[in-house]
Amino acid sequence: MPAPAEFLRYVDSQSDAFIGRLSDAVSIASISGDAAYRPKVVEMSNWLNAELQAVGVTTKQVDLGTHVMDGETLPIPPAILGRIGEDRTKKTVLVYGHFDVQPASKSDGWDTDPFVLTKHEDGRLIGRGSTDDKGPIMGWVNVLQWHHETQTPLPVNLVFCFEGMEEMDSEGLDDLVVRERDEWFKGVDCVCISDNYWLNTRTPALTYGLRGLVYFRLSISGPGRDLHSGVFGRTVHEPMTDLISLMSRLVDQSGNILIPGVDDMIGPAGAEELALYEKLDYSIDDVESAAGGKIALSDDKATVLMGRMRLPSLSLHGIEGAFAGPGAKTVIPAKVGGKFSIRLVPPQTPTAVEKLVRTYIDSEFAKLGTKNTMQLELLNDARPWVADWKHWNYEAAKTATEAIYKQTPDLMREGGSIPVTLTFAETLNVNVLLLPMGRGDDGAHSTNEKIDTSNYIEGTKLLGTYLYEVAVHAIA
Amino acid sequence: MPAPAEFLRYVDSQSDAFIGRLSDAVSIASISGDAAYRPKVVEMSNWLNAELQAVGVTTKQVDLGTHVMDGETLPIPPAILGRIGEDRTKKTVLVYGHFDVQPASKSDGWDTDPFVLTKHEDGRLIGRGSTDDKGPIMGWVNVLQWHHETQTPLPVNLVFCFEGMEEMDSEGLDDLVVRERDEWFKGVDCVCISDNYWLNTRTPALTYGLRGLVYFRLSISGPGRDLHSGVFGRTVHEPMTDLISLMSRLVDQSGNILIPGVDDMIGPAGAEELALYEKLDYSIDDVESAAGGKIALSDDKATVLMGRMRLPSLSLHGIEGAFAGPGAKTVIPAKVGGKFSIRLVPPQTPTAVEKLVRTYIDSEFAKLGTKNTMQLELLNDARPWVADWKHWNYEAAKTATEAIYKQTPDLMREGGSIPVTLTFAETLNVNVLLLPMGRGDDGAHSTNEKIDTSNYIEGTKLLGTYLYEVAVHAIA
Repeated sequence: MPAPAEFLRYVDSQSDAFIGRLSDAVSIASISGDAAYRPKVVEMSNWLNAELQAVGVTTKQVDLGTHVMDGETLPIPPAILGRIGEDRTKKTVLVYGHFDVQPASKSDGWDTDPFVLTKHEDGRLIGRGSTDDKGPIMGWVNVLQWHHETQTPLPVNLVFCFEGMEEMDSEGLDDLVVRERDEWFKGVDCVCISDNYWLNTRTPALTYGLRGLVYFRLSISGPGRDLHSGVFGRTVHEPMTDLISLMSRLVDQSGNILIPGVDDMIGPAGAEELALYEKLDYSIDDVESAAGGKIALSDDKATVLMGRMRLPSLSLHGIEGAFAGPGAKTVIPAKVGGKFSIRLVPPQTPTAVEKLVRTYIDSEFAKLGTKNTMQLELLNDARPWVADWKHWNYEAAKTATEAIYKQTPDLMREGGSIPVTLTFAETLNVNVLLLPMGRGDDGAHSTNEKIDTSNYIEGTKLLGTYLYEVAVHAIA
Repeated sequence: MPAPAEFLRYVDSQSDAFIGRLSDAVSIASISGDAAYRPKVVEMSNWLNAELQAVGVTTKQVDLGTHVMDGETLPIPPAILGRIGEDRTKKTVLVYGHFDVQPASKSDGWDTDPFVLTKHEDGRLIGRGSTDDKGPIMGWVNVLQWHHETQTPLPVNLVFCFEGMEEMDSEGLDDLVVRERDEWFKGVDCVCISDNYWLNTRTPALTYGLRGLVYFRLSISGPGRDLHSGVFGRTVHEPMTDLISLMSRLVDQSGNILIPGVDDMIGPAGAEELALYEKLDYSIDDVESAAGGKIALSDDKATVLMGRMRLPSLSLHGIEGAFAGPGAKTVIPAKVGGKFSIRLVPPQTPTAVEKLVRTYIDSEFAKLGTKNTMQLELLNDARPWVADWKHWNYEAAKTATEAIYKQTPDLMREGGSIPVTLTFAETLNVNVLLLPMGRGDDGAHSTNEKIDTSNYIEGTKLLGTYLYEVAVHAIA
């Protein structure tokens, strides 16, 4: 069941008004990570709540209590739960989005005021939150506007969950989802999250997998204070010598993880899966262009894409406590903490991989024969996720994408983590679809964040069409 | 020829006045490394110049031009050249000191105002510059005061060179020494520098050697910008992986330098030299107590002391450009610069060792098979120095120390570098003696820097007595 042609025409005709709506949203600097802007996130919650009500959504703003940031206790901005449609013969789709944004200021290097949506002549709509994640949220409101104005019943029931703390680890959201599982979210059949990006700038995409994460700090200490390398060099066990030696034993130059058992948890790709990677509209040139250097680990496209999407990876991020400034300081740092993380893929779990890491580090540390002491801390973890991409939720999105974009979407997995995905998948136990609106070069957390006008407008059509296709595919 | 008993009694009787002089010197916050305090260094130069003239020294303040610090062009504070005595039958001793100090403020953790000399009941005179290097300079002025007041001719001619930029790499000093070699410094027979510390807190010391230094930044770059480890992990060559691998190949856990040829340049210690280390009043406990941890590389005292004094050492200081903050940032840094340095001992030279390092790093980098690029920069270098400790200059200092302290001084080499030592040794081609006044725990560059009253007062006697012993030993 394609979306009504009248709806699609309406979206085109309302383009300026829809951009105006996004402009209003961007103008509220709802930066969740800066205490000074916290009232703006609350204002944004109120503004969005009113927008939803104006297009017929029943809402409630939910107080999520307080949290501590930089030693200050702050109120968590209220989340918004919404519902429209109660037809028990229809499927119920839960839509998630977040109305908070990353920090931004002109002095970071923006060409324009980040909180004034600026339309470039090439079609880019530039502003903080334009693509992450206000554009997609406004897309949903745009869809509802037509149905509300024309009194057209939606093809599905919709449940909304919009939060204002996504850029702050979604503080409070997990509890909310658990609490509302059998209340507000009761009867949800599938989830749709539009909060990531196409692989490239030309091909729409559906995302069915995310890597998980274990992030460690490997600390070595020994001296009671920082020492002078002239006075103590070659008299004591230096923590940096031990740490660098251990860090060098984690991953090789080809990206292979040297911790026994970690890579072994992943089986080879079957023919059907391999075909997915070979079909993706993404080349080695795309990878290297995005990285800004001719540094791909392989000349084989599927190998490189599988390195990102279906294999674990280990990165060394840096060292806390060592000398990091410019110049030539002759210090022997007393305590150094090496930061490294492993991206996980199913069937890996943070618990299983952490155990392998601990066993290996303990064993390698013992081999050093140093008198320094070692501590390994898990700073962060997230489970990996892979959805069934043959589910009707994905089929609906694929058909909708083909209808709007006349292209088969890339069926891809993200290398990074989007924790809320796990929250919904595991708490509600339904299929979750990541349906990106923006392009791979939108610069979500960077300066000059943008969404292209065509992505915003066609994306609005896509979201609406997807709902109609869900109604069809779910029955099939 | 011991110093006159009258002189020694005078020093004791003038203890309060001498502490008052040091207090006046400390009260001028002559921080050379902070542009805002530069006028204070000039004020200090003027104050010291007047002090020297008041005790009979002919002086000239020398303009050393300007230098650039943090992008600002600043005048270098005038150095002071002094001369007293022109008797061609006497030896001429050049005395060096510096009247600038390290930064200090109460907020750094000082218990008292760093620029108010505070006498603790245990005898410590606490204040910035008390031991580094205003105490020793005031010691010389104290010596001159008695000779001036009593019209007693000095046993040697004295030439002074006091600078106000020692804490800023002695900017301008090398040129001055070269310029004055055949002018103000003509006829100098030996040099005495009191600007280092005893090995411990109980035994006076003479220092006859310093290690040199080569300090490197090993940079690896590849990506055009910092990358997200989720998106790029296991798709590209990560600079940190390459850097950590190279840094792990430089030194082992026992302190052995893995760069072929570097350790090999040093022959084993002969019996006479070995005896020097065994005689030093410094135990493994002292090393570990100074380091603040039970982390000595060996249980053998001579081994540990030789590691500091007669062997090269390689320390890994840190990484510029990597993630160094707290928390769990999932970044793949685009360009990282590993800092490491090698302390050198004769016959090593920076040039010879740099060549070995470059050859090794080039070869190891090639083995990595990475597509990233590598750059090795020498950020700093200093030649090592060892003086003839059987020279009359040392014999004089040894006899003087025994006369004042009733102890044989530790004959030691420093693990660090004092570049001015090289400047004088190589430019004037005479024996240089390092004759420390303060103790090993004075905390020269730390909070609560102090000199003990007894070190200051007995040290004043020592400096005076040394001059008398030079007069005798030089003839013998």
